[in-house]
Amino acid sequence: MSESRPIALDAMGGDHAPHEIVAGAVHAVRERGLPVVLVGSPRVLYEALADHDATKEIPIVRAEEALAMDEGALASLRRPRSSIAVACHLVRRGDAAAVVSAGSTAGVVATGRLRLKGQQGVLRPAIAVALPTLPSPTVLVDAGANAEAKPEMLLQFAHLGAIYAELAHGVHDPKVGLLTIGSEAEKGNKVVKRAHELLQAGSGLHFAGNVEGHDLLTGKVDVITSDGFTGNVALKTMEGAVRYAFTELREAIEDSRIARLGAALQRSRIRELRRRLDAEAYGGAVLLGLNGTVVIAHGASKAQGISAACRLAADLAAAGVVPAIGERMAATGRSHRLW
Amino acid sequence: MSESRPIALDAMGGDHAPHEIVAGAVHAVRERGLPVVLVGSPRVLYEALADHDATKEIPIVRAEEALAMDEGALASLRRPRSSIAVACHLVRRGDAAAVVSAGSTAGVVATGRLRLKGQQGVLRPAIAVALPTLPSPTVLVDAGANAEAKPEMLLQFAHLGAIYAELAHGVHDPKVGLLTIGSEAEKGNKVVKRAHELLQAGSGLHFAGNVEGHDLLTGKVDVITSDGFTGNVALKTMEGAVRYAFTELREAIEDSRIARLGAALQRSRIRELRRRLDAEAYGGAVLLGLNGTVVIAHGASKAQGISAACRLAADLAAAGVVPAIGERMAATGRSHRLW
Repeated sequence: MSESRPIALDAMGGDHAPHEIVAGAVHAVRERGLPVVLVGSPRVLYEALADHDATKEIPIVRAEEALAMDEGALASLRRPRSSIAVACHLVRRGDAAAVVSAGSTAGVVATGRLRLKGQQGVLRPAIAVALPTLPSPTVLVDAGANAEAKPEMLLQFAHLGAIYAELAHGVHDPKVGLLTIGSEAEKGNKVVKRAHELLQAGSGLHFAGNVEGHDLLTGKVDVITSDGFTGNVALKTMEGAVRYAFTELREAIEDSRIARLGAALQRSRIRELRRRLDAEAYGGAVLLGLNGTVVIAHGASKAQGISAACRLAADLAAAGVVPAIGERMAATGRSHRLW
Repeated sequence: MSESRPIALDAMGGDHAPHEIVAGAVHAVRERGLPVVLVGSPRVLYEALADHDATKEIPIVRAEEALAMDEGALASLRRPRSSIAVACHLVRRGDAAAVVSAGSTAGVVATGRLRLKGQQGVLRPAIAVALPTLPSPTVLVDAGANAEAKPEMLLQFAHLGAIYAELAHGVHDPKVGLLTIGSEAEKGNKVVKRAHELLQAGSGLHFAGNVEGHDLLTGKVDVITSDGFTGNVALKTMEGAVRYAFTELREAIEDSRIARLGAALQRSRIRELRRRLDAEAYGGAVLLGLNGTVVIAHGASKAQGISAACRLAADLAAAGVVPAIGERMAATGRSHRLW
């Protein structure tokens, strides 16, 4: 896999498309040295690039249609020439290393599955998100691609997450936790209880047992496997709670006049912390299990978030996540002990 | 319902039983003027009360057995004379107004269902938790009693939560949200999609549509209905994320020497905010749908948390939550439009 192939960036997806997406591309190219192609309406994108004096630095690939942010999975069928579809096509043809889109998650997932297809042996592609734990992130899979999951899928999500943790975060033999409502093996719904048995029965993974909602940010495990419904609710709850705590805190600080001095002293530190906890800073979600790397940036991403997503996409492509998943699927598929 | 009946407090359940439970009882009696009986081992409790010079203020009801914190639902069958079972029995006999326990959630739920029985028309008792939103709390139901739920149960949880919001928080015609993974009606798993239809089809509730994880703390709705698996994961994720944000923040503050002065000035405000977000301060979870009020205090509760739980239990009993649920069940059960 050549490192020189560009990132195919869906310039029409996201709340702040196309201007912040274009600004993100410019940042990725100039500050990170990453090659990027913008996919979208040439006229609009050319003008936006001109604002940055970047028309000669960043190529444009034409796509006259786009998926709206409120369009779901079905729209991807109706619009085979949408910017996200064309971006996927560039990867499929080998002309781009990976796709980045800040479009609607449902639209990106559906289009990715349609255009790039699931890898052989993968039951369902799943979304992985790196939670900002220290020293290394905890990978949550599935964060929303599959609203329903069978126990075998939860086992496979654990494999996908483990490969991500190994290749993206350099974690050796990552510890896997199963998201449920109690630490004992019998805690959870039927799907989770069966998944617990599968994970324990020689899955080849380092299974550390059940984890609960409060373990998302403790770094207790390197990978958390979950169905996409629960995983998505947990992820959004986490983001909302962190935002809430910071907002309340700012009010508590501003409320007290005598505390203003202290607040001024601390503002930069708080900002720094907030940035680390901000979804944009860590680049977004990754759709694992397709024949190509797809990074889904937060819909509200601005330039910095898009640039971080390009970095993540380039790193994952360079690390060979797709072939690594292919090998793992082949190995686990062959072994009856493992499935 | 006489106001003078005491709260039956399970003195043997909780991480800090019996000493913090007894201290909580003393606080509830002396500071809040609430009548309390302690249920548990008389010898142990007499000694603990003696430490507070309270042997004459607080009666003891004997229960020689107790459920351990790691014991689940089955233990409640094996121990018919456990402290939580005896506490439920006092309510059943009419000798106590409500039960408070900091024992294991699974144990309290199972014992409550066994000893107090579900109210007529209630498909499944469910756990309600008041989330610390302003100006009034958002009630999350089910926060963990039922790991699996049918669509009809989600509708009923919404009714239970609405009654709670009306009686405990004085919210008129509470807005109900359905916890799922997108705002559009078709977002979610099969159970949630069907529940959406039921809630919309003249349920008699003020249905405000779908809500997502980040809406737990925005106060967008007064009641959030969810299966107990998702609800429990979301609740624990929220608690963990808030705790994480505060810990990180304290470290960020302490890290900077020049910020120490400011930190000292702000410490009391931060402590105050933290207390509001602390599960203990708002008294715990309520098991709704039984023939008796049962409050489940946090397992880690200390005296203040236990005392707050006693306050909550007394208020709910005085407000007549149990008869109000009975009336609603009778009304919705009669009307085919509603079910």
